[in-house]
This record gives sequence, C-alpha cells and structure tokens, in this order.
Amino acid sequence: MLKDTVLKNRSYRRFHESETIDYSVLKDLVDLARLTPSSVNFQPLRYKIINDKTDNEKVFKTLSWAGLLKDWDGPAPGERPSAYIVILTELSVASNMKTDVGIVAQTIMLGAVEQGYGGCMLGSIKRDMLAESFDIDLDKYSIDLVLALGKPNETVKIVELPETGDTKYYRTNDDVHCVPKRKLEDILI
Amino acid sequence: MLKDTVLKNRSYRRFHESETIDYSVLKDLVDLARLTPSSVNFQPLRYKIINDKTDNEKVFKTLSWAGLLKDWDGPAPGERPSAYIVILTELSVASNMKTDVGIVAQTIMLGAVEQGYGGCMLGSIKRDMLAESFDIDLDKYSIDLVLALGKPNETVKIVELPETGDTKYYRTNDDVHCVPKRKLEDILI
Repeated sequence: MLKDTVLKNRSYRRFHESETIDYSVLKDLVDLARLTPSSVNFQPLRYKIINDKTDNEKVFKTLSWAGLLKDWDGPAPGERPSAYIVILTELSVASNMKTDVGIVAQTIMLGAVEQGYGGCMLGSIKRDMLAESFDIDLDKYSIDLVLALGKPNETVKIVELPETGDTKYYRTNDDVHCVPKRKLEDILI
Repeated sequence: MLKDTVLKNRSYRRFHESETIDYSVLKDLVDLARLTPSSVNFQPLRYKIINDKTDNEKVFKTLSWAGLLKDWDGPAPGERPSAYIVILTELSVASNMKTDVGIVAQTIMLGAVEQGYGGCMLGSIKRDMLAESFDIDLDKYSIDLVLALGKPNETVKIVELPETGDTKYYRTNDDVHCVPKRKLEDILI
C-alpha cells in the first residue's frame, strides 16, 4: 500500500554513509520522476546524480541541515548521505515550476523508500558554490532542490502537535527525531 | 511497485461521472497528504473535499481544461469528475509553498490511482468565483490547485517527443490522448 511507503518516507538526515547507492538505482528514481505530471507538459526539470565520495563532499558543503535544530550542524562524517539528486530547471523551457519540483521530489523519495533508502529534501543550498563545483551555468539552470539520499540511521517519529500548536520538529534525549503533524480534522476546511 | 502506480497516474480529463467517490476515500487521500514532508514542517496546506453533484458543478464552472487542446472545452456532462480536492494555503502560516503543493498533489493522485481512480491537477482556476461559491476567504487562504478525480474514461498514452521536440499533448483520430515525455538521457545533466 502507498500509505506504508508514505509513512516510511520520513525526512532522514543521518545515514549509514558506508552503504552506497548504485548509479543505476538513482537513474531509475529519475526515470520515475520523468513519468510524473508536469504543468502544460513543459517538463523543464533536469537532474544531476551524484554518488561519488569526492563529489558527495562537494555537495555536502553547500547544504544547510535542519534549520530548526539550532544545536546541530548536520550529519557528522560517517553518517552523511551516500548520494544526491540535484533538481534543476532548464530556464529556456520554463521557470519557477515549484509545483513540478514538489511532484518529482516526492515521487523520487517514495521510490527511494521502496528501494530501502530514505532521505531529505533540502532547499537551503549555497547555489553559487554548488554551481561552481559542478560547472552548472546558472543563466541556463536554476537549482531548485537537493535530495539527499542514503540508508537511514536514525529514528524519525510522527507525533501530535503540542498544545501550543508549535510544528517545530525536535529530538528527544534518546535521540529520536520527532515531527509534529497536524491532525486530519485540522487541515480539512 | 511504485512505478506501476506512477505509470498509471496519467492526467485524466474524462470520467465515468456516474461512478461516485465516497467521502471516506477522499478523506483518506487527504490523510496521505497530511503525512508528507513540508518545508520547515510548517504544514500550511488545507483541503476542501467536494463530491456532491451540485457542488461539483460549481467547481467545474471555475476550471479551464487542457489548455493545449484548442478545440476541446473540457469534459461533457456525463464524463465530468465525480469529486474534487481543492488545495489551499492558510496564509497566516505560510505563503507561496508551491513545492509543498506539488508534494501533496502527487501523493493524493498516486493514492487515488491505487484506489482505482484517477484525475488531473488543475491550476487554471477562476479563484474568485470558486472562493465565492464555497465561502472561502481569500485574505485567509490562497487557492493553489484543484485536483479533479473520478473513474477515468479515456486512454492516455505516453509517447516519444516528435523530432521538433514539441512537448504538446494531443489526441489521435481514435481519441487516444498522447503525452510526449522527454527521454531519460535528455533530462539527466
């Protein structure tokens, strides 16, 4: 059932870094994205797959992790992602296609979960640095989102919102990452 | 496999209108959306479920269908959607969360396909008219997307791009809706 996959698809930020992801697996995930709906069928999105140790480090340096965890700078060496898929827009085709970006990002993540991986969508990116590292022409492409992928090495739990209504995620003393989700009745209007 | 569902999840615009969709099914689809990632975990999206004949007509009037099919005004009576899910953003929480919108829209569509339904994401909406019909306060909510849902009653086929590179979808003489999709090698950079 899709619901099982959706539930397993938590935002993971710590991984078994030694567990690599084959290029062919990542390519299949992009192929899933290829088959999704696109506004006016423009299909302006492009994908850069990165799964090599040196390149992974270059991507990692450009990312900010879990803005709400003020005391945590992101995954330590050994628990970093094994691969990344950078989602870009080819600007000669269309621009500002954020809905398309969400569609493909979620599809890729669900596919990754099905393959036993997991990850996180990251939008806080040093775009100029990433572009320079990988010779991406920012006149030609926008960098929309980075999907960090790996074999998850943390427990992420959906919890109820506290009485304050605060949606901030947090970690418990025993290192469980808790994500308050609104109730169904609170999102139906 | 997710890929089967992704492949089955074409944009359908003609339906067996007489096949209704239970409110509980639609609520479960929104529940799937509830469990998806949200930027900074804000969860600003809200959902209005419509599956009643009179209300369906009100929604239908506000929608533009298949902008690229110039000779087609949208589904005729009898082949119109049986239900809609309107995706809105609660503006006091966040605004312009289009990536979130894409994430939930695709998740709902995949869930609908799994339940034997299908549909189309529609962004060309007479928002003022829709808001008026359903007492939606546009100072409080933005209307982001309408998901039209039903039991599909058309054949939609993925085809290769023509040599011109044109991505416009079209209908063949035998009424098959063809959607040219880029090749995998053309979207990898």
